[in-house]
Amino acid sequence: MTGRKKECYSLASIANAIGGTLVGDPEILISGLCSLQKASPDKLSFLSNRAYKHYLKTTSAGAVIVSNDDQLLFSGNKLISEDPYLAYALASKLFVDSPKFLSGIHSSANLHSSVSLTKDVFIGPNVVIEEDVVIGHRCQIGSGTTIGAGTVIGDECSTSANVVIDKDVTLGDRVKIHSGAVIGADGFGYAFDGEKSIKIFQLGSVRIGDDVEIGAQTTIDRGALDDTVICDGVKIDNQVQIGHNCHIGKHTIICGCVGLAGSVTLGAYCVMGGGSGAVGHITLADHVQVSAMSLVSQSILEAGRYSAGTVQMKTRDWKRATMRFKELDSLAKRLKRLERD
Amino acid sequence: MTGRKKECYSLASIANAIGGTLVGDPEILISGLCSLQKASPDKLSFLSNRAYKHYLKTTSAGAVIVSNDDQLLFSGNKLISEDPYLAYALASKLFVDSPKFLSGIHSSANLHSSVSLTKDVFIGPNVVIEEDVVIGHRCQIGSGTTIGAGTVIGDECSTSANVVIDKDVTLGDRVKIHSGAVIGADGFGYAFDGEKSIKIFQLGSVRIGDDVEIGAQTTIDRGALDDTVICDGVKIDNQVQIGHNCHIGKHTIICGCVGLAGSVTLGAYCVMGGGSGAVGHITLADHVQVSAMSLVSQSILEAGRYSAGTVQMKTRDWKRATMRFKELDSLAKRLKRLERD
Amino acid sequence: MTGRKKECYSLASIANAIGGTLVGDPEILISGLCSLQKASPDKLSFLSNRAYKHYLKTTSAGAVIVSNDDQLLFSGNKLISEDPYLAYALASKLFVDSPKFLSGIHSSANLHSSVSLTKDVFIGPNVVIEEDVVIGHRCQIGSGTTIGAGTVIGDECSTSANVVIDKDVTLGDRVKIHSGAVIGADGFGYAFDGEKSIKIFQLGSVRIGDDVEIGAQTTIDRGALDDTVICDGVKIDNQVQIGHNCHIGKHTIICGCVGLAGSVTLGAYCVMGGGSGAVGHITLADHVQVSAMSLVSQSILEAGRYSAGTVQMKTRDWKRATMRFKELDSLAKRLKRLERD
Repeated sequence: MTGRKKECYSLASIANAIGGTLVGDPEILISGLCSLQKASPDKLSFLSNRAYKHYLKTTSAGAVIVSNDDQLLFSGNKLISEDPYLAYALASKLFVDSPKFLSGIHSSANLHSSVSLTKDVFIGPNVVIEEDVVIGHRCQIGSGTTIGAGTVIGDECSTSANVVIDKDVTLGDRVKIHSGAVIGADGFGYAFDGEKSIKIFQLGSVRIGDDVEIGAQTTIDRGALDDTVICDGVKIDNQVQIGHNCHIGKHTIICGCVGLAGSVTLGAYCVMGGGSGAVGHITLADHVQVSAMSLVSQSILEAGRYSAGTVQMKTRDWKRATMRFKELDSLAKRLKRLERD
Repeated sequence: MTGRKKECYSLASIANAIGGTLVGDPEILISGLCSLQKASPDKLSFLSNRAYKHYLKTTSAGAVIVSNDDQLLFSGNKLISEDPYLAYALASKLFVDSPKFLSGIHSSANLHSSVSLTKDVFIGPNVVIEEDVVIGHRCQIGSGTTIGAGTVIGDECSTSANVVIDKDVTLGDRVKIHSGAVIGADGFGYAFDGEKSIKIFQLGSVRIGDDVEIGAQTTIDRGALDDTVICDGVKIDNQVQIGHNCHIGKHTIICGCVGLAGSVTLGAYCVMGGGSGAVGHITLADHVQVSAMSLVSQSILEAGRYSAGTVQMKTRDWKRATMRFKELDSLAKRLKRLERD
Repeated sequence: MTGRKKECYSLASIANAIGGTLVGDPEILISGLCSLQKASPDKLSFLSNRAYKHYLKTTSAGAVIVSNDDQLLFSGNKLISEDPYLAYALASKLFVDSPKFLSGIHSSANLHSSVSLTKDVFIGPNVVIEEDVVIGHRCQIGSGTTIGAGTVIGDECSTSANVVIDKDVTLGDRVKIHSGAVIGADGFGYAFDGEKSIKIFQLGSVRIGDDVEIGAQTTIDRGALDDTVICDGVKIDNQVQIGHNCHIGKHTIICGCVGLAGSVTLGAYCVMGGGSGAVGHITLADHVQVSAMSLVSQSILEAGRYSAGTVQMKTRDWKRATMRFKELDSLAKRLKRLERD
């Protein structure tokens, strides 16, 4: 909780860190990143969306990241990059105002005597770690986090505050879990005995690969028999629900508020748009993109973009359209009859 | 954690507190609020939905808040008000069974030595407050809440239990945050390097105005470069996700389970219905109302009500209709052909 | 946090515990449950979905639960059951790797002196329990849980980590609440005074029956005047939002990410599919099933299955269909005109 950095970098050292060709003054000091419109002379900006290229004429930025194609549009200090948006991402790491690396165990933390960890980890206030947990090097466990018995965490993982990782979960290296996320709660399974629901105890767990990021308040349930699996490089936004026995392929992106029922298999490099969902026991191929708030109710075997729902309308007009939707089958049949006549 | 009030008020003192014209016995003692159907003689009730006006004949309520137009329908003690629903809202404050105002810092709280606060605040058990946090007068910070470095909180704010406010967030006065909400987690941004997602560190924060209420488990992400902004008087229900760099105009209402992608601008006095959503980088004018579970996928420049989706049907009928939806473009073309013939 | 069991059972003792007719070796030791495909000789498997019956020929399972009809398909050790899926559910309880029953109050817990509990409860680290709370026999309160003043909890209830139960909530017996759930936060109610929203203080609470299970991150709001009610046997998955004054009938199933607005009444034995929702003040009969991500915007008085929305399409095709949806009323009128000609 101490020692937040606020550093400046010379343009040369930024070029060194993120790549690109520097044209202009290598000594100019940069204190942060900013949009073209709002940048001051101590800021670095970037042009990735060419709809904004007119701002190059008026920006006060001390330097701009531009593509090869756009470099002539800007006469000031610049970093020429093949992919300015990617270069901006790399530069953002330099300016993040994060705490210096911390280590030590806060006096209010409760660790079972069997916990295995090294001196270079940080365990925050009110953290609870149960028996047989293994925590890798340079992990940072935020305040109020609970880690259940038998969980194994790789190197350089972090949790923000009030995260819950239940028992027997496995995390790879460099996994980042944001505040309030719950990993490994029971999957939702019952058998009906004719009168009431009988709980199916969830005997699997959750296995998470390397370089996974998990958003605030997201829940990933433990498997019923086998494990729920999140592969390397998957990025999951806030408020996402991933049901038991889902298998999320490498580098797939899951935006906010997505809900996946049980046993959904997503391929690699998929994108589930915000608020989209999938019913249980279906499979999506690699490189499938699902639009915001679309439900996937059948497996998708071919890469591509998929959507469901209807676009917004004025409610007055929408009411008429949705009433006609109810008649749609009859309208189609009447049309066919006319065609036959 | 002590001293819960349970008070009675004379009808005269209630009239004094909430306004309205008292007709009847000013001395009658009222112990709480109740619906017309269930009220006992020590309860105050109200008629705002005129579909319930027949209950005025049978209610046992000790007194009723009625409008000018309805006053003759009830012969008992009454408070005549221009807006009975608003009068009921004002009266509800009198009867809320909340803890007496508390102050003091619980012995289990962890406060960095640089935290600035006054003697009139309450800091609950297991609260963690990091360096350079400033907390205004008469704030109540509930148990298990974590407040990150550099955050500034105005006067008379409260958090319920297990809230997380990350670093450098700004709250105005009288902001109320319910249990489990997470303010200022990272926005969801990555650049793709052709193989994997590169994190865009989120350098902005969250600025929240005065009189904002934020529901349980809601998440409001910090901005990428600039801040995410929630203006004065905004009310946000539970389980809402607000992406980075959203800007929510004054007095807008966001119902439960709404998801807003990044850089959405909502005008003032909008209503986002429960479960509705908006894709990124769009703008809604003032006074726009979006129906429950409708996706807004394009900017809305004109005030009014908007909807998407279809209404419920028996699944058997719905299956036929949704199959026809897939043929809709072809149906329309065939219709046009018939018209030409 | 100690003493996790990992036990083996003879097939005879399993038959004894879950019922069914044992055919084969009663002495074989079973260490766990597994799918037919993955089972090793120390595992018990089951066939409930007959699409998998070919696996009976190749499975290595030590024993299989089969129905009467399927028993001849498997020549190994078997338990013959009327309902193999139900038998599997019952067997799962034997193999759950849960902590042994714990009792005692962790030294870091904060309990008000007026709290009523017996010696057989377990109160975990950093738990906060406010005044006048009553906790029944053999309850297990997980780490970081906060329980508000006046709440009454029955016997054999459990909360996982970081649960919040606000004041004056009532829980029956055997209620299980998963991590991060919030019970009894304020309902979302305001009266508009022409300029701003005036809070309606929420004077009701939440009453939860026996044998209810509540998922991680789920929120159930307290009532405005009366209570929000969850009846016996209701099962609620993760990330569900239940608004103030909802009434959920017995044994109803609410899947993940469902949102119910205020004053929704669900009958008994309903199923709300994942991500579905209901607008406020409507009623669903008993035995209503709502499909995933369908909005219920009108009361449903007849048992059966209901759906809304459209099925997924390739986005290119969907764009054409959804544009035609906007013309649907006009298409229908044009069709009618043609029919008249």
